[in-house]
Order: sequence, then structure tokens, then C-alpha cells
Amino acid sequence: MKLKIINPNTTRSMTDKIGGCARAVAAPGTEIVAVSPGMGPASIESHYDEALSVPGLLEEVIKGEREGVDAYVIACFGDPGLYAAREVARGPVIGIAEAAMHMASLTGTGFSVVTTLARTCNIAWHLAERYGLARFCRNVRASDLAVLDLERPGSDARRIITEACRQALAEDGSDCIVLGCAGMTDLCAEIADAIGAPVIDGVTSAVKLAEAMAALGIATSKRGDWAHPPPKAYSGMLEGFGMARR
Amino acid sequence: MKLKIINPNTTRSMTDKIGGCARAVAAPGTEIVAVSPGMGPASIESHYDEALSVPGLLEEVIKGEREGVDAYVIACFGDPGLYAAREVARGPVIGIAEAAMHMASLTGTGFSVVTTLARTCNIAWHLAERYGLARFCRNVRASDLAVLDLERPGSDARRIITEACRQALAEDGSDCIVLGCAGMTDLCAEIADAIGAPVIDGVTSAVKLAEAMAALGIATSKRGDWAHPPPKAYSGMLEGFGMARR
Amino acid sequence: MKLKIINPNTTRSMTDKIGGCARAVAAPGTEIVAVSPGMGPASIESHYDEALSVPGLLEEVIKGEREGVDAYVIACFGDPGLYAAREVARGPVIGIAEAAMHMASLTGTGFSVVTTLARTCNIAWHLAERYGLARFCRNVRASDLAVLDLERPGSDARRIITEACRQALAEDGSDCIVLGCAGMTDLCAEIADAIGAPVIDGVTSAVKLAEAMAALGIATSKRGDWAHPPPKAYSGMLEGFGMARR
Amino acid sequence: MKLKIINPNTTRSMTDKIGGCARAVAAPGTEIVAVSPGMGPASIESHYDEALSVPGLLEEVIKGEREGVDAYVIACFGDPGLYAAREVARGPVIGIAEAAMHMASLTGTGFSVVTTLARTCNIAWHLAERYGLARFCRNVRASDLAVLDLERPGSDARRIITEACRQALAEDGSDCIVLGCAGMTDLCAEIADAIGAPVIDGVTSAVKLAEAMAALGIATSKRGDWAHPPPKAYSGMLEGFGMARR
Amino acid sequence: MKLKIINPNTTRSMTDKIGGCARAVAAPGTEIVAVSPGMGPASIESHYDEALSVPGLLEEVIKGEREGVDAYVIACFGDPGLYAAREVARGPVIGIAEAAMHMASLTGTGFSVVTTLARTCNIAWHLAERYGLARFCRNVRASDLAVLDLERPGSDARRIITEACRQALAEDGSDCIVLGCAGMTDLCAEIADAIGAPVIDGVTSAVKLAEAMAALGIATSKRGDWAHPPPKAYSGMLEGFGMARR
Amino acid sequence: MKLKIINPNTTRSMTDKIGGCARAVAAPGTEIVAVSPGMGPASIESHYDEALSVPGLLEEVIKGEREGVDAYVIACFGDPGLYAAREVARGPVIGIAEAAMHMASLTGTGFSVVTTLARTCNIAWHLAERYGLARFCRNVRASDLAVLDLERPGSDARRIITEACRQALAEDGSDCIVLGCAGMTDLCAEIADAIGAPVIDGVTSAVKLAEAMAALGIATSKRGDWAHPPPKAYSGMLEGFGMARR
Repeated sequence: MKLKIINPNTTRSMTDKIGGCARAVAAPGTEIVAVSPGMGPASIESHYDEALSVPGLLEEVIKGEREGVDAYVIACFGDPGLYAAREVARGPVIGIAEAAMHMASLTGTGFSVVTTLARTCNIAWHLAERYGLARFCRNVRASDLAVLDLERPGSDARRIITEACRQALAEDGSDCIVLGCAGMTDLCAEIADAIGAPVIDGVTSAVKLAEAMAALGIATSKRGDWAHPPPKAYSGMLEGFGMARR
Repeated sequence: MKLKIINPNTTRSMTDKIGGCARAVAAPGTEIVAVSPGMGPASIESHYDEALSVPGLLEEVIKGEREGVDAYVIACFGDPGLYAAREVARGPVIGIAEAAMHMASLTGTGFSVVTTLARTCNIAWHLAERYGLARFCRNVRASDLAVLDLERPGSDARRIITEACRQALAEDGSDCIVLGCAGMTDLCAEIADAIGAPVIDGVTSAVKLAEAMAALGIATSKRGDWAHPPPKAYSGMLEGFGMARR
Repeated sequence: MKLKIINPNTTRSMTDKIGGCARAVAAPGTEIVAVSPGMGPASIESHYDEALSVPGLLEEVIKGEREGVDAYVIACFGDPGLYAAREVARGPVIGIAEAAMHMASLTGTGFSVVTTLARTCNIAWHLAERYGLARFCRNVRASDLAVLDLERPGSDARRIITEACRQALAEDGSDCIVLGCAGMTDLCAEIADAIGAPVIDGVTSAVKLAEAMAALGIATSKRGDWAHPPPKAYSGMLEGFGMARR
Repeated sequence: MKLKIINPNTTRSMTDKIGGCARAVAAPGTEIVAVSPGMGPASIESHYDEALSVPGLLEEVIKGEREGVDAYVIACFGDPGLYAAREVARGPVIGIAEAAMHMASLTGTGFSVVTTLARTCNIAWHLAERYGLARFCRNVRASDLAVLDLERPGSDARRIITEACRQALAEDGSDCIVLGCAGMTDLCAEIADAIGAPVIDGVTSAVKLAEAMAALGIATSKRGDWAHPPPKAYSGMLEGFGMARR
Repeated sequence: MKLKIINPNTTRSMTDKIGGCARAVAAPGTEIVAVSPGMGPASIESHYDEALSVPGLLEEVIKGEREGVDAYVIACFGDPGLYAAREVARGPVIGIAEAAMHMASLTGTGFSVVTTLARTCNIAWHLAERYGLARFCRNVRASDLAVLDLERPGSDARRIITEACRQALAEDGSDCIVLGCAGMTDLCAEIADAIGAPVIDGVTSAVKLAEAMAALGIATSKRGDWAHPPPKAYSGMLEGFGMARR
Repeated sequence: MKLKIINPNTTRSMTDKIGGCARAVAAPGTEIVAVSPGMGPASIESHYDEALSVPGLLEEVIKGEREGVDAYVIACFGDPGLYAAREVARGPVIGIAEAAMHMASLTGTGFSVVTTLARTCNIAWHLAERYGLARFCRNVRASDLAVLDLERPGSDARRIITEACRQALAEDGSDCIVLGCAGMTDLCAEIADAIGAPVIDGVTSAVKLAEAMAALGIATSKRGDWAHPPPKAYSGMLEGFGMARR
């Protein structure tokens, strides 16, 4: 199967890292394509960034439908554009927050999310609620790192995040950790070792869930709200999104 | 005060109607400016349309900040981009679904939403939940009209919607009605007369809530998640959204 | 419009203060009448006081209906008798806890209530739940002041409440404050300045919501639970409440 | 023990019936005193009636404290004044809706409430939620009988209520019935026989719960919100409620 | 009436203590039979123990049906096998966690559970949710005592639990305490005296609730999910549970 | 990896069918072992059956730990003994209701469960709530088939279940179906074809989730409630469950 991972920010180094981690867990028959959109923010740290990452993301899904992509992963912990992407795609679309939280709820009795800036905590809480998994979410903790600190060689990010995970276990009553940013995907095993508890990363979790759905022959239901969007006139810079070609 | 109403779709006739209805309820000192974005979908009938209406909407908020706008109304019942707009704006930003649902919860013990296409019902439910008002929402009913049917002279829309409102009262255990589309704003008084129960329209409700907040000197809190978004590099078609200028 | 504000306790100085603050935000065409009932407790600090404030409050609503009142505000943060008053009145009736919590949910992502005695905190929580707004309520904090301390010249109330608001922002994860007593209405702007975050007062919020409903032509729905109460025999001291005259 | 049952309406025939049914289930050592207040409505069918039944009810609790009453039952399905009464009383105070819903949740997987007028259904729902038992409440059904129809010899009430109970079992997915009015207490056994499922009456349930609490030595906690109300000045017709004498 | 209390663990000293405390509160006409099953764990401190206590418990219920038992109490705070036992029994079956939580919700505005090992806290939370009473549960606190420490003469259990109760009142915002283990039943009065707040024990609470249901003529509804289980083939060690004999 | 699927009932034909369907979706490196316990009920159709299926199931998990099993699937839609099994096992343990509901929440906006006997519907609802997924569950529908009807050649089961699925889509507002019994696993693809919407089977879903967890290196957290149960004395027929050998 062909699995397209869309990192909705435009920071290529992060996209490459995400692709690499995805390939490390993918099944033999899975081809991983990791991309960043051609437009949008360099990192996503506000509702504003999140909203403006979506056009580029949807462009990649539309292209993917022509490229024969079987399933998509949205590799930003805010799961931007998830439902819009599901409308466009024939196959499964999985968000990494969604994937990580589902996996965490199968792993322990409660999880803590460790994320980047404090202002994104509410987004994580809102997603936990939307997916029904807030009852397993004991806390969402900000590490106060900017997303791109995770890409900076020599940054202290690794230590800071590990420490936040350790505190989460000690103070939150949780028994496993969800990493709250796609840029942390490469730290997963290392932190799990360091803290002695399961650590769940959304990127790799989403890859496995997308593969699972493909193997089961399940794709987004097209009977209801996620049916293909009705084609219509679009104007201005976004004219190309009218989907008239379908 | 200067109140900018952004109809996030690009259908000018609807924008004009919205502006007219807003002016009819506005306080003497309120200047109403009703606009459509320069890009985006002609109507919003899917998560896809909703997501793609947001860049144009945010562009209007950014412009509004330079134009001395005091408050904003987002005139689409999905409240697209509400939190992103709150991050950008100094003054209040009110969504029409939000406004109508709050007003309805002060008016009766339960409301029904009467909306357009069935595929948008879940969006209304989700908003009701997000605002905490699902406990007052007895039903969301689709009239199966397309949004632009409301703009078509000679369409049967008026009759169909009135009938759906009447059924809602009879069958849902609700005692007031929320109109689930900005394009229905001009029907509000007429339907209320026809069905003998309060009918709440989001456009006019949002105007009065925005005026109320202005009178009270309350604006979006900038201490938390809705602080101004951190400026950053944007690329491609959306490069201008980097907000470097602030 | 004629707007009657009923302070359900019998402390006239508080009623006057409430009336003054209400007039300061009222629209030009709004006539504010602020009253205390002719019977009941001097302050409301228990379920017992609250229950016994309601007959006097309802008497004022019944009188108001004869006086041509267009809308009512119940100026006690427990919103006593709100639904009973809605049954009696033709126009809107707004409670100040209700008003403040609604406004706060439009202002920030989460609010803290700062109130008087600890024993009233549960009442605030219960109202937040009833109105659907508990999801926005991060904490209810008692300042351990008695209600009438707020009326005592030279009391330390102002400082104590400001301090409690500051702590709430620092510790509760909230980004705006709701003042939990009608007697605090005059402190609103001052505290907002002191703490640098929006502070919402129920009295003034309720005035603007009542005006908004009037401008929109919306009043309590009389189709359901809040229909006018059926007249019936009342006996003893409360004989006059039989409403036979309607 | 001395158990005072307060029927908060002033209809003596109903009070006598309630007293009789209570005595039929009371333990040998329990003395049942059934009273109506000296003031208030002849029946309770609105929020207005409910609010105005409370002063008379509280007067009976205050008298009860002087008479050596050990526990109280509030015999109206809206549980009016429950928390205020708990503040005043040293011993347990049980509402009949509360009692019946608790008992029903021990009896089956879901219950239906069968009550009188449709406008009181929301009150029952609200109580179910307040007590945490809404998850067991499958429906609240109005029989459209007035409360005093239950007192009228030769009325069709018995048949109508039995029929509503039968329908509830058939249509609501419930497996037991809660009778939603103190005036139905004498019908309990007869309806249970007729419909072949458990029928729970609040009056008798509350008697047994009050006895249980007394036997266990448990009374209302006085450490928190239900501590004795602070004495204070009351004025007008309600001056006597200042509780200065305590 | 004949009331069988089943301590689902096999520690006879605890069973005797439970029987004694039950007899101390039982009504004159109640015959208390306290038993331990003939198979299973010596104490219940995990989901594993809980699951494996159920066959022995059900065996005792099946025997009880032949012995003319009128009602059952399951004397372990995890309420193991409660619904299965209800299917088998004709009369009421009450779990002690269920009983204590219901009683606590009639006693105060919020309770804390004080239990044994930390790993059982989630079980208590889950039960609170299942019974609808999580809204009253302010905290579940582990004392880190093993269940059988409560049986060990000279252990420090009494002091440790009293201290945990005191802390709960001070820190949790609760106003009464629920003892979270059947083995604590004999400490109830002593702790209540020591901490000056109501302390609720499940064993004695369940006895009174079972007596109440019997007095009211209410038993488990057999119309729905708790109808007698359909007889069927059982094999292996559990062959005898086929219930063919009914 | 070695994946043990435990059908907790003792009907071998169903176990074989389950094993076959599991193998059809398993990854190349996955060895599927499908077993029935050596004791317990022939089918599970009550809380009683469910409780008594657990000892045999746990015995198989204990054996599995010695046999080098990497992960377990519990193949009964009530997910009996799930948490107890997680305590015993080192690797992941997945219930089929859990698996199917999680997968369904990734597939559509709402699912209906189609199950066997009406008395098991509540169990499905309870699990949906426990896993947080009740918000996606639009209905649980009984087909009124006994579990073993699914094993009877020539039975009408296939047609009846397909019809129930069709009705669910038409009436419940759901857009995908969850099959509510392990015995339906072989019908999944056929029904999906017949009704034109995604149909999710728990057995195959659980296989893929267990494989996913193994690939991600995630197993049940042993830090909290699901730590290995403390060894202790067991007596009677269940003596062997004392786990002293670990």
C-alpha cells in the first residue's frame, strides 16, 4: 500500500525525520511518502497557524488521490483538517493525536500528553474530548519548547521533554505518556527506556492504524458527513480548490 | 463602534442580506461593515468548504485590525476560524452559531436547530457541545436545501424552512428555534410569527452580543490560548500570512 | 425599554450600587429600575437565604408585569427564582451568574469565579453545570468575605478580592475572571486594570443581555415549561400569590 | 424515631394519604407525623408553585427541630427546598424524587418516571441529573393529569397512570417505573401487579431511607455547604425566618 | 427476612467481623448469614482477584436461592459479580460500594473514598461512574494498607486510616467519608468520632438498603437485562454452573 | 509474533471460525493460535455467563505466558476479563468490542452495533462508555438471535443480521456498522457488500491492533493498576490461580 504522511508545516527537516520514523515501523508492503505542503507556516503553534496549514494539506490529499495513495497520516498533533481530508480521500485518513490517544487508551489506565507550548494544551484537550478519550487523559503538560527547538541540533529539547515525561508519571496518576508533537517522534524509544513506562508517538501509531484499516478493507464511510464534498465555485487565490475536475 | 461582519463565503447577495439584517438591529452608534473574503468557496456545505473559507476570513480580520474595527462577527453557522480570528483580533469575535445557541439557552428550556443539508448537522452538534450548550439542543434538523437555494428568488425555501421549524416544535420537545444558516437571517421574524414561538437568528444575535461586549469593555483575553499568534515564516501562496508586520 | 433589576436581598445600599452600575452601561433608551423586595434576608449566604429571597423577588416580578416592565435582571449570583420568574414574566429574565458565565465563555478559554463565602461555591458550580458552562469554569474561589463586608466602608474587601482574582489567574489555568457577587459590581473595571485580564460582572452583563433580547424581539418561550403558571388557591401568609387576577 | 413528612402543598387529603402509606411501611419504632405547611399552594405544578411552597416547608422543619424530629421527608416530586431544609435540620432530610430514583437504580437497569403535567417533566430530568441518576432514567412521561385529579374520587387517574406505566415499559427500554408525584403513593402496589414490573414510590422509599440513615447514625454533614445557615436580619412578612433564636 | 452477606474473599475472620457489624444495625426481624465462598482468593486486590472471586460468590447465591434467602449483600468494595448475582437472585442484591456511595450522596455534598492499595482506586472511580455518583466523589485515596493488614491484631491500620480520612476532609473539599473496604466496617463509628464528620461504611449501609427494598416489596426487575440467565451447557471444572436444575 | 485468540466460550466450531478469519487478515509474521477454555459456558448471553467465562480465559492467559505468547485477543463482544488478563499478561491484550469500536470511530461519524440477544445490549453500551466511544455509538440493536444460531448450518442468521444492519443505517443516523458478536466475524465482508457501508468486525480489528502494538513496542503499562497481581493464597477449586509460581 502507498501511505502518504503529510507534515502540515513546511519545515523539511521535520518531514524527513517523520518519514524515517514511519518507515522504521511500516510493514514490508507499505510505501511511505512523507511530504510538506507547498504553502503554509513553518511550524504550527496557534489556531491561526493550524487553520492556515490546512489548504496546503488538502492540496496534498487532492494530489494523493491522483497518485494512487491508499491512506494518509496528518502529522501534526492538532490533527488539522482531519475531517476535510476525510471528505476528499477515498481511503483512511488518520491524525497523529487521534492515533496516539487511541493507542494510549489500549496501553494504560490513563495517559499524560507532553507537548510544546502551553498555548497548544487546550487544542490537545479538545481533541481528547472529540475522540472520546478525555476520560483517559490525566493531564496535558507543556514543555515550553517551540516546535522548531526540536529541530535545532544541540538544543536541550531531549532532556527537557524526558524530564516532563518523568514528572507526568510522578504527578498525574498516569501510567503511560503520549508525545504531543510530530517532531518528537524520534525520541519515543529513548524516553520509554529512560522513564520505564510506555511512551506513545502519534506518527508511528498512525502508520500502524492506517495499515490496519487497509488490511481490514475499511475506509472512511462515504454515506454520511464525510461523503465527497459537493463541487462548487471557488474564487481568488483558492480557485483551484473547486474540485470541478472530479 | 465599528463592527465587521464577515460572511466567509463569496456570495455577495448573501453578504448584502446579512448586512441589512444586522443594520436593522444594531444600536445607533454601531457602524456595520459586511464583507465577503476575496477568496474561497461560494457556499459552505462541507468540512472542506469550511476549512477553505478560513484563509479569506482571516485576511479580512487582519485587514480589519488595520481599519480600526472594534468587533467581528463570523456569519456562517459552522463558526469557521473562530478561535484563529480571536487570536488575531484585539476586540471581540463572535460566531453566529455560538451567538444563536447562547441566546436560545436564555429563551427556552430547549431549542431545535433548523439547517440546510444533512451533512452539516454534525457540525452544529459539535459546536453545541463545544460551547457547552448541547444540553439545550433537542435536535438538529436538515431542511435538505442547499445554502444558495436561500438566495434564489422564487425558491420554495421559505416555506420548507417554516415547515421544518413547525415540525421541530411539534416533535423535538423544544420550545424555540435556532436558524442554522446565515442565509436565513431575513426569515426570522416571519417564521416566529408563523409558528408562534421564539426564533433565534445568529447574525442579529451576534451583532447584539458583540455590542454588549464592547459596551462592557470586554474583549478576547490575551493571557492564554488566544494571545496574538507568534509571527513566523509562511511560504507559498500563503506567504503573506506570516504576520511579520505586527 | 424598562428594565427592572431585583436585588433579592433587602440591603438598600447594595441595591443602589447595583442600579448605578447598571445605568452606567445601559443603552440610552433603557430605563433602569433597581429594587429590593419588601421581605426576605438582608444578604444571601445559604440555600436557606436563597429560598427565602424568592417570594419577595416574585412579588417584584408580579408588580413589574403591572408596571409595564420589559425585562428583569435577578441580581444575586445564585440566580434565585430564575425559572419561577420566567414563568411569571412576559419579557426576558436574566440571572447575573447566568449572564456573567455566558459572557465569560465568549471572552476566554476558561474562567474562574471569585465569590464570597466558601459555602456558596457549590451553588456557583451547580449553576455553571445547569447553564452548560461548567466546561469553561476552571475554579470557584471563595474570598471568605461576607456579602455585607462589601458594603462596609473601610473594609478590606477590595484588596482581598483583587488578590483572589490575581491568584485565580496564576493558579487555575483561567484567562478571565467572573465576579461571584452582585455586591462586587463596582469593582469590575478596577480589578481588570489591576490584574491585566478581562473581569466580568454579572449585573452589567445581564443588563446588556436583557437589552439584546429586547432588541432582537426575543422573550421567554411560553410554549413549554416556562408558560405562565396555572392560577390556583394559595393559603396563609402567601395567599396573595394565587395569581387569580391574571 | 420521629419522622416528619412534609407535603409541601396545602391539600390535606393528600397529606393524609401520604401519612397512611408511610405508616404502612414504617418500622415498628418509627413515629410518622405527616403535615402540610400553613401557607402556600394547594398543589405544585410549576417552578412558581415550587418556589412558593418552600417558606411553609421550612417553617415546618424549623418547628420540627423544636419538636425533636429525627428525620424529614419532603413529599413532592420536585424535592423543593431540599438543600435549604438540610441546612436547618440536624437529622437526615430526604426528597421523594431523590429516594425513588436511588431505589430504582438498585432495582433495574433503567427506569421511566410517570408524572402529572408535561411542564414538570424538565424538573424531574433536572433532579435526575443533580442526583447523578440521569444515566438510569430512560424517560419522563407526563400523564397530563393535574395533581389534584389524583385526589378526586371517581377520577380516571388510576387507569390513566397505569396505562402510562405500561407504555413506558413497552417503549422506553426501562425495566422499572418511578411514580412521579406524592399523590400516587397509594397506587404503587396495584400498578406493580397490573404491569408485572417493579414500581417505585418516593414517599415510602424516602421513609425507608430516612430510617436507614437513622439506624446507621448518619445525618447531614455539617462541615460544608449544609452547615446551619448563619443567622441574619429578615424583614417584612418573612421576618420570623431570621433564625435568631438558634 | 433472611439476608445473606457474602464476603467474596475466603478470610473467615473478616467474614465474622462483617457479620457482627451487620447484625449490630439489622432490624429485629432480619436474620443475618455471613459467609465466605468455598473457593477463591484470600483477599481481593486486583482485577484478577476480583474476577476469580465471582464463581465462589455466585455459588453462594445459587445456594441462597435454595435456602430461602430474601436478599444478598456483596461485601467487597469492588462489588464483584453484582450484575451476575442479580440475574440469579429473586430478591435484591446490593454491593457495598454501591450502598456506601448512595448513602454518602444523601449525607453530604461530596465524599472521599479511603481505601487500601492504590491499584484499587480506579475500580472505585469506575463504580462511582457506573452508579452515577462520580459527581459526588471528590477523591479516592489509598492508604497503602493491604486488605489483610486490617485483620492483623496490633497493626497500625486503624491509625493510618483515620489519618487518611482526616486528610481527605482537609484537602479534598469533601464533607463526608466512605470507607473503601469491607474490612474497615468495624472502624466506622470510631473514625466518625475522631474526625467529626459522617463516615459511611458499605456493609452496614447495604444491610439497611436491602432491608428497605424488602420492606417496600421491591426486588431486581426480571423484565430486562437482569432476567434469570438462560440455562446452558457448562463444561470442565465449572460444569455445575449450567443451572440446568432451574 | 505469537498471537493467542481466546474465545471465552467452549464452542469449538466458533473458535475455529474465529481462528480462520484472524489468519486471513494477520500479517505474514503473525502466528495465530485460537483456543477455547477448558471450562465455562458454551455461549455467553448474560452477566452470569460472562463472569463464569473468565476463570477459563485467565487460565489460557496464564498458560500463554509460559508458551511465549506475545499478545492476546479476547474474542467475545463483552470483553470479559479484559483488565484481569492485562494484569497477567506481559504483552498487549485487546478485547474485540474495544477493537471494533475504536476502529469504527476512525471510519465514520457514528456507528451502530448489531448484536444477538436484547439482554446483551446494555453490556455493549457500558463498554462503549468505558472506552470513551459512546459518543460515536448511535444505537445498539439486538437481532434476537442466540449466539449459537450463528453456528447452526441452515439458520437464517445471515439474512437476519444483514437486515438489521440495513435498518441501522437507515434509522440510526450511523454511517458504519459494528458486528456485536465474535460469531459474526465471517459475515463481515459479505454484509459490507450488501449494505454499501463499512462493517467492522472485532476479531479481525483486534488482531490488527495487537499487531500494531507489537510493532510499536507498546505493551500494557505495568506501572499502575494493571501491574502483575500480587500472588496470594487461593483455595478450593480455584486453588491453582494463586500464581505462586511467578
